[in-house]
Amino acid sequence: MSSKHGSSPSAGAFDLKAYLTQRTAAVDKALHGLLPPAKTRPATIHKAMRYSLFAGGKRLRPALCLAAAEACGGAIDQAMPLACAVECVHTYSLIHDDLPAMDNDDLRRGKPTNHKVFGEGIAILAGDGLLTEAFAIAANCRGWPRYSHRVIINELAQAAGSRELIAGQVADLEGEGRKLSAAQLKYIHEKKTSALLCCSVRLGGMSANCSTAQLRALTDFGYNVGLAFQIIDDILDVTQTSEQLGKTAGKDTAAEKATYPSIVGMEKSRVIAMQLTARAFRALDFFKGKARALEALAEYLLQRDR
Amino acid sequence: MSSKHGSSPSAGAFDLKAYLTQRTAAVDKALHGLLPPAKTRPATIHKAMRYSLFAGGKRLRPALCLAAAEACGGAIDQAMPLACAVECVHTYSLIHDDLPAMDNDDLRRGKPTNHKVFGEGIAILAGDGLLTEAFAIAANCRGWPRYSHRVIINELAQAAGSRELIAGQVADLEGEGRKLSAAQLKYIHEKKTSALLCCSVRLGGMSANCSTAQLRALTDFGYNVGLAFQIIDDILDVTQTSEQLGKTAGKDTAAEKATYPSIVGMEKSRVIAMQLTARAFRALDFFKGKARALEALAEYLLQRDR
Repeated sequence: MSSKHGSSPSAGAFDLKAYLTQRTAAVDKALHGLLPPAKTRPATIHKAMRYSLFAGGKRLRPALCLAAAEACGGAIDQAMPLACAVECVHTYSLIHDDLPAMDNDDLRRGKPTNHKVFGEGIAILAGDGLLTEAFAIAANCRGWPRYSHRVIINELAQAAGSRELIAGQVADLEGEGRKLSAAQLKYIHEKKTSALLCCSVRLGGMSANCSTAQLRALTDFGYNVGLAFQIIDDILDVTQTSEQLGKTAGKDTAAEKATYPSIVGMEKSRVIAMQLTARAFRALDFFKGKARALEALAEYLLQRDR
Repeated sequence: MSSKHGSSPSAGAFDLKAYLTQRTAAVDKALHGLLPPAKTRPATIHKAMRYSLFAGGKRLRPALCLAAAEACGGAIDQAMPLACAVECVHTYSLIHDDLPAMDNDDLRRGKPTNHKVFGEGIAILAGDGLLTEAFAIAANCRGWPRYSHRVIINELAQAAGSRELIAGQVADLEGEGRKLSAAQLKYIHEKKTSALLCCSVRLGGMSANCSTAQLRALTDFGYNVGLAFQIIDDILDVTQTSEQLGKTAGKDTAAEKATYPSIVGMEKSRVIAMQLTARAFRALDFFKGKARALEALAEYLLQRDR
């Protein structure tokens, strides 16, 4: 794939596995330090928050955030609070989405979902706690004249808010059992997935005091990778077993949820995902080979099998 | 009451009703402008958010926030985003507390609760949306060198977070049906009520670039008024009908929830509430008569009958 877009001829040599291992460890360490210790009173809520936050998530959003900061010449340390904030928002949204009143899912990343372990009341509050913590953590980032704390908090709140991330879950809920058009499904995917992925790379750029042109390239990249990522998720739900996925497979079909394969067919779904990824790569051309990690992450997102 | 503490001999002349009417109208107008319009796609979530936000709340926390700003010589306009943010947090917490998995309440302010109208899934998301919006709104306040956006967002996130507001709801959930000590009940009240009331006046002070000594006085005031307020709530739950309260009366008793009257008795509960209010008034002595609105609000909170 990297030879096609040509911006970094040696991209194949990038050791993504080592990169991700290192980044995941750094993010985990930072999250451990930022979240209240599990024994903090009342212990139940802090155990519940940590249960989902450290349940083996791939830390893709933090990795994208940190990689975006690097692509703009920024320091990992300055992007870290934002990478952690984004992961807290992501985890909160998973906890709430899994609730019986929403997707009613029993498994997540191969483990019982939060409400299965702690009960619905605590699961709702654990999500609330992580969402709130995200803003406390984000407020600790370094600000710049162009990207002040005001701008950064607004960026996170907009992506997580009722016009983006929450809008996606609402549309998803309202779409269950209905026949959706491809456009309606795209709307859901944009809101549920692209919004926060896009926010992750934008915040990474902002932490590095990126130029307006860099921010535009990151936005373009994040939007397209996000959409591709969600289409892959739809495809894997059909083609993989629960064991392979670490979550209940075939759930979308069972819940009569619209998916790309069910609306446009499997082959076309794969083609669209490829096209979106190609667009994402083109956006990275702007960085003239300095966005190696972002390129490798995009390849990984398209080629993953779970 | 005002003659007892003596800090403002003419406090009786303060027209609290007119003050509250004016402030409530100003806060409502600001909230209308700050929240996404009800027609914003997806309309369901924005209708649900607005349903609870404009369900006749007394706007006590915003009023306290604005009054604290005034006591410190600040401008209403600069405190308004923080007053609105606090009200969004308060409303989100009510929506989630009313859910079947929590207090399972059907009525709030005389109207069906959010999940009764919109369903549990949307109610959870409407709460999430209001909590997120609170941070977007708070980020739009004016910052100062001493009270930067970083400090202000942290203040709100701490008060709303898993060690304060959410901790209170967790302890409340875990305490149901159990025999609590007076100390445990005090913990719940501190977290569920004092934390956000205290935050409201502190944020008002911060918006006015208050001195450290002023902030300390406001903290002392907010903490004591908050505790008194919650004890009054407990008392009213026993002594008033649902119609008078605009919510289900006798609920605490029915749910076997510990209350001040059930643990220390009705008369002692009244005495404690009076003592706390006296402490709150003493804190206001610091403002040498410039905290007239705060004094009047504290009297109102103690003497209210619903």
